[in-house]
Amino acid sequence: MKTNGSEAELEELSEVECLDVLEQHSLGRIAVVVDGQPQIFPVNYAMSGRVVTFRTGSGTKLSHAPGSKVCLEIDEYDSSTGVGWSVMVQGMAVDATDAFDDVSWAARAVAPWPLAPGAKPFRIAIEPSQITGRRFRRRA
Amino acid sequence: MKTNGSEAELEELSEVECLDVLEQHSLGRIAVVVDGQPQIFPVNYAMSGRVVTFRTGSGTKLSHAPGSKVCLEIDEYDSSTGVGWSVMVQGMAVDATDAFDDVSWAARAVAPWPLAPGAKPFRIAIEPSQITGRRFRRRA
Repeated sequence: MKTNGSEAELEELSEVECLDVLEQHSLGRIAVVVDGQPQIFPVNYAMSGRVVTFRTGSGTKLSHAPGSKVCLEIDEYDSSTGVGWSVMVQGMAVDATDAFDDVSWAARAVAPWPLAPGAKPFRIAIEPSQITGRRFRRRA
Repeated sequence: MKTNGSEAELEELSEVECLDVLEQHSLGRIAVVVDGQPQIFPVNYAMSGRVVTFRTGSGTKLSHAPGSKVCLEIDEYDSSTGVGWSVMVQGMAVDATDAFDDVSWAARAVAPWPLAPGAKPFRIAIEPSQITGRRFRRRA
């Protein structure tokens, strides 16, 4: 990435830039809220337009995500360049396993590939309310 | 890391193992809940015993973390070995900037070093209610 001294130290990414970064990655973290307590889990996701989707087994994510607000985040820091960035998708989770709404159809059009073992027959989608990101570069 | 075929695919880590992993790292993500919506931010943290601490400026983390339940998570996946793990600290956040309780004193005994630019004069601590982790190894 080209940078020069006149750049801001911390810059906001546009939604288009965020979607571009989301498309280029597949391992993120999902936050779900259980009785007021947020919990974070790594997930392998896939994008279908603006819709995020991931697979899961029965457990906290399946019990507490659908119908609730969740967040997906990805980030990276490269110590050789000093560049760090993060992208966050906030929105409502939907059990897209076999529902017929547009978000569920979109979610089922792509194939997230879980790294973690175990049966993951359910598919959760996130209908984004907000997609934001930022990038910084440490000054030398 | 030595592994053998008889190991479970997915294993839970003890709290002692989780604390050991937390000590060895410094870049994690914090989840805070804003009006029912979880948000995730990368943070550079430090450990003081079981207490997690990080620095922040004024913003979402300072406005919504203290007095609320938050979560810190770290994870890693090594594609060469197929080993992945994640550790999660759930608990109550405290504004430890200049409070006199035990958690705040513990938090001020260590020096988290933020990578991201900007003034971060405030210090948040997490008093853990639960520290959990798991590790998996993909079968060849």
